Amino acid sequence: MQHRAEKVVLVMVGLPARGKSFLARKVCRYLRWLGHDARVFNVGTYRRERVGQHQPASFFDPGNSSGNQARQRVALEALEDALRWLRADGQVAIYDATNSTRERRRMLEELCQRDGIPVLFIESVCDDPAIIENNIRETKLMSPDYAGVGMDDALKDFRQRIAHYAKAYEPVEDARQSFVKVLDGGRQVVVNRVDGPLRARVVALLMNTRLTRRTLWLTRHGQSLYNQRGRLGGDSELSHQGEDYGRALATHFATPPEGFEVWTSTLKRSMQTGSFLGLPTTEWRVLDEIDAGACDGMTYEEVARRMPDVYAARKADKLRFRFPQGESYLDVIRRIEPLVLELERQTTPTLIIGHQAVLRTLYAYLIGDPVEHCPHLAFPLHTLIELSPNAYGCDEKRFPLTRAIEERHSMPPG
Amino acid sequence: MQHRAEKVVLVMVGLPARGKSFLARKVCRYLRWLGHDARVFNVGTYRRERVGQHQPASFFDPGNSSGNQARQRVALEALEDALRWLRADGQVAIYDATNSTRERRRMLEELCQRDGIPVLFIESVCDDPAIIENNIRETKLMSPDYAGVGMDDALKDFRQRIAHYAKAYEPVEDARQSFVKVLDGGRQVVVNRVDGPLRARVVALLMNTRLTRRTLWLTRHGQSLYNQRGRLGGDSELSHQGEDYGRALATHFATPPEGFEVWTSTLKRSMQTGSFLGLPTTEWRVLDEIDAGACDGMTYEEVARRMPDVYAARKADKLRFRFPQGESYLDVIRRIEPLVLELERQTTPTLIIGHQAVLRTLYAYLIGDPVEHCPHLAFPLHTLIELSPNAYGCDEKRFPLTRAIEERHSMPPG
Repeated sequence: MQHRAEKVVLVMVGLPARGKSFLARKVCRYLRWLGHDARVFNVGTYRRERVGQHQPASFFDPGNSSGNQARQRVALEALEDALRWLRADGQVAIYDATNSTRERRRMLEELCQRDGIPVLFIESVCDDPAIIENNIRETKLMSPDYAGVGMDDALKDFRQRIAHYAKAYEPVEDARQSFVKVLDGGRQVVVNRVDGPLRARVVALLMNTRLTRRTLWLTRHGQSLYNQRGRLGGDSELSHQGEDYGRALATHFATPPEGFEVWTSTLKRSMQTGSFLGLPTTEWRVLDEIDAGACDGMTYEEVARRMPDVYAARKADKLRFRFPQGESYLDVIRRIEPLVLELERQTTPTLIIGHQAVLRTLYAYLIGDPVEHCPHLAFPLHTLIELSPNAYGCDEKRFPLTRAIEERHSMPPG
Repeated sequence: MQHRAEKVVLVMVGLPARGKSFLARKVCRYLRWLGHDARVFNVGTYRRERVGQHQPASFFDPGNSSGNQARQRVALEALEDALRWLRADGQVAIYDATNSTRERRRMLEELCQRDGIPVLFIESVCDDPAIIENNIRETKLMSPDYAGVGMDDALKDFRQRIAHYAKAYEPVEDARQSFVKVLDGGRQVVVNRVDGPLRARVVALLMNTRLTRRTLWLTRHGQSLYNQRGRLGGDSELSHQGEDYGRALATHFATPPEGFEVWTSTLKRSMQTGSFLGLPTTEWRVLDEIDAGACDGMTYEEVARRMPDVYAARKADKLRFRFPQGESYLDVIRRIEPLVLELERQTTPTLIIGHQAVLRTLYAYLIGDPVEHCPHLAFPLHTLIELSPNAYGCDEKRFPLTRAIEERHSMPPG
């Protein structure tokens, strides 16, 4: 799907430690993955560069006029940079700061309107002390603001900084403004006057975002008969080695975590691999491998020989290359978007048994790798990838489950 | 995608003439189209059957105890029917009544909880007198309640009925309950504690639903070279007759309505047809024709000869039949779901130049035809279908734009 470029400024709103930067980065990653040019402008980073890190809590006191001026200056500088970038070739600027007063927000809106660029406010409201405390410990105390400061002192200072902001905080309430309000990490979401397909997607992501963290596992199906022969696509059965991998996977998950889910595609090699686990599985057609169209069933050598133009086009731009009557990597990304939203929404540990191209696109989203890298990500057969989310990204472990098997048999390249 | 059956009661909440039945029917239509078993239980219908139509406004006065008892009785009867149906094989019961007090909602929730079935409240709030007045005139005065009553008397009586409900109205506010609140026809949407993939989809629909009505046009591409030869799928160019149709379409839309959009698939025959209009077009890959997989490029006669099992399976169940390595009609429905949400969201008059199977699924959604009818809906080539929404459905006009051309050439069946 192609849309006329919809430019927009997403303005984050909220007290410190309410997960604004988490949401800002998440939205940015999602939009970039969908092919939009998005960028976060973090006012804290500008402040540290211009005014220096290690500002005490009193710098953030609304009664401190020199502190106020300095903060206003860097806030404007960040916005001007964002607007300059949008006037050039940028598409979505995510303006990450507390923006905690009506006056500040009106000013931001006016400056954007001058350039004819609409604003969507994204407010994160949280009164759950456990979530706030966890946020502070996980992200704020790691910030350059507190480099070399003891944990207890940093914590005390940061709580004071929050208190200063809280004094002047005015929630987003203006019914004429376009806003999304996320309460307590998604327990409640309020969406007001949101327009445009790109913003509708941002809302869909925010609606589905959960704070709960869970582990995901990605793996390709076991080796198929087509893999053995180096053929593209098809719907062949598992080879003996592929079956061995299914068994190895079942052993690895012999004691599955609570609520464990298994997702497969609707292709035989994926469903057969999953069947070894002996658990209920969910089949997703959107997890099916990239459609090789007219090249389905061929080897790459045959494509090179019979369709030299197609082969050359694929080599030249593997991301945008679309198999004749088939799909490109970008097509696969658009196709799996609903699955990504469902992954964001559900919070149970899940094993996804997919295919090389489709997993590359999913993995790029999960770890935040640029979409251009997708077609080149290493995704060998018979390797289980474990992704455990941390504050802003994922920790990764790879288990080559059937190394012993592979050493016995000789494997063609994945 | 397959999910474990998630049973749920959707309880509508709102004063009369706030579009509850409109939303209830819309949600029902959407879920059924996605293959879920959904059903509306309208308490008004029960009331008319049990207590008789033509009850005066005073029947709805909270001070009228015999009226109250009668209303409570029919409300319970409708809920009991809904729960009985869910205990059997139903999946989503949509309970359509005002349910305007906390007490009533607590009672409903308790009764559902006894059966272990979760409740999602859907409240429609509207304070815009123009929308309310329009709702009354368009739907309420057409209701059997006012059969044979003069317009002015009916209007007066209905306004009184609203006033009775308004006296006792308590908005949905309990943060522990699962609810969606739709304000002023979607200007603001509040989503609280919504769980489960099916309910997430209901929310996505409600988020995108607009009250604005606009005309949609559906058409297949002009005749292609493959159509001429009776071949399935492919990506062939337009025939001369197909080009004539593109020109006829351009003439028909010589003065396009304001904000007019043209959507095509990414296949040549669709884009070429659209190109005659000389307007910017949006290409949607999800509008591409059903994937005929291994049968792509064959005629039906060839399928019957070479793959008799496949041919027989298709004949036996055309809705669920999946082409080998291709798609079924149900697959197409799941694929175009994001496009349907986008169609609900945007409010500009739009021409969709698609393909037979994909348009059949879209048309079934738009007019609310049972999904089983999809594969049998008449969608001839070179015919423009105009759909103008009315209070609960669509008015339809068909323009056989190139009858003259077709009479000159002989056309093979679509």
